[in-house]
Amino acid sequence: MVVYLVGAGPGDPELITLKAVNVLKKADVVLYDKLANEEILKYAEGAKLIYVGKQAGHHYKSQNEINTLLVEEAKENDLVVRLKGGDPFVFGRGGEEILALVEEGIDFELVPGVTSAIGVPTTIGLPVTHRGVATSFTVVTGHEDPTKCKKQVGWDFKADTIVILMGIGNLAENTAEIMKHKDPETPVCVIENGTMEGQRIITGTLENIAGKDIKPPALVVIGNVVNVFKEMNQISG
Amino acid sequence: MVVYLVGAGPGDPELITLKAVNVLKKADVVLYDKLANEEILKYAEGAKLIYVGKQAGHHYKSQNEINTLLVEEAKENDLVVRLKGGDPFVFGRGGEEILALVEEGIDFELVPGVTSAIGVPTTIGLPVTHRGVATSFTVVTGHEDPTKCKKQVGWDFKADTIVILMGIGNLAENTAEIMKHKDPETPVCVIENGTMEGQRIITGTLENIAGKDIKPPALVVIGNVVNVFKEMNQISG
Repeated sequence: MVVYLVGAGPGDPELITLKAVNVLKKADVVLYDKLANEEILKYAEGAKLIYVGKQAGHHYKSQNEINTLLVEEAKENDLVVRLKGGDPFVFGRGGEEILALVEEGIDFELVPGVTSAIGVPTTIGLPVTHRGVATSFTVVTGHEDPTKCKKQVGWDFKADTIVILMGIGNLAENTAEIMKHKDPETPVCVIENGTMEGQRIITGTLENIAGKDIKPPALVVIGNVVNVFKEMNQISG
Repeated sequence: MVVYLVGAGPGDPELITLKAVNVLKKADVVLYDKLANEEILKYAEGAKLIYVGKQAGHHYKSQNEINTLLVEEAKENDLVVRLKGGDPFVFGRGGEEILALVEEGIDFELVPGVTSAIGVPTTIGLPVTHRGVATSFTVVTGHEDPTKCKKQVGWDFKADTIVILMGIGNLAENTAEIMKHKDPETPVCVIENGTMEGQRIITGTLENIAGKDIKPPALVVIGNVVNVFKEMNQISG
């Protein structure tokens, strides 16, 4: 018995790795989240497929229930895949699942994926780093852990580029915080449905982006690299 | 004529995406850097392969020469692949190459890859984010642009986890800077030859890591997530 924690990539089914495909082909069971594209489940032909995803405001399974189910399936099968969007350790709660396995003495392996934090901007031609413009970037969740009593995320990141995942619900509040430390004219690019059908790109500034019509799922990129994106893609304004 | 800027992933040849493989198969020409593993060039069967990589202290081609060559090949061929380790926009100078293409009116496409900044820690079971421990991470290069007159990287990153790429040469200097802002006892994990044969993991603290025997290529991860890694992998100390 072994559990592979596998990243599925940012959405485009072609952005999965060969290793993920090869592991899915050998799987007896696949526990999967709400994926951007379920097409990749075709590689797990013959495996038992168990949906454990969540929807906003409607939890199908708690994280503890998922951990318990993962342990149960691991004990009954040779090869279990736990499939997650993006990379399993970029806000994927993969660590909690691994710790539950460790507690039961179950072996695990990790297969990284293309995280949407980088894969989505790269796909549209938005470089998170660029010589002379950005030598660092910070990735942060805009959706704070609701079980925390006090907000822990400070927004005074010193990195040249900031990428916010799950950042639409609190966009007005979070951009207001960031403007305490960065110029309100700092360019911002939001990508809805990145790498997928219905992809939409919205540009603005820290000051005006929250006023635009944006729907999740979307990624927020803040910094002068957005100007490089505009230059590359010959977008004015 | 079109140029695909393609990420090859962090080293393990199985960590390339299906999209990268499919584009390589159609390539007429591939311009490639020093790759962690040249095995993936097999997908570009029949393509002209041009090595444009650099080695420390010994530049085969300047970035300008690469840009010029890329433009020339694009004008003479239908499909040119520019293949880079990791993701093309994470310290890959991909942006400069795209701007050179734009100047000549040449079409381009981007194929993101698994960046070593995330893929290497994930593979060893080191989560760059973990609930209650790290809700943000910063990725930065330890190897400053030598053409800059003044160092621009400040090290007062507020993110919970810091990942340094190309960070071994200046490790003592950079950890000293980081200790001005973070506890010297903050745990550090260095991964040499991540995801490849000869992979080696060294742990320590901000205070003592620079004194250890470390050889590039290696990735540096700083933060309390290193304790989660130790717990997951049952490493003491």
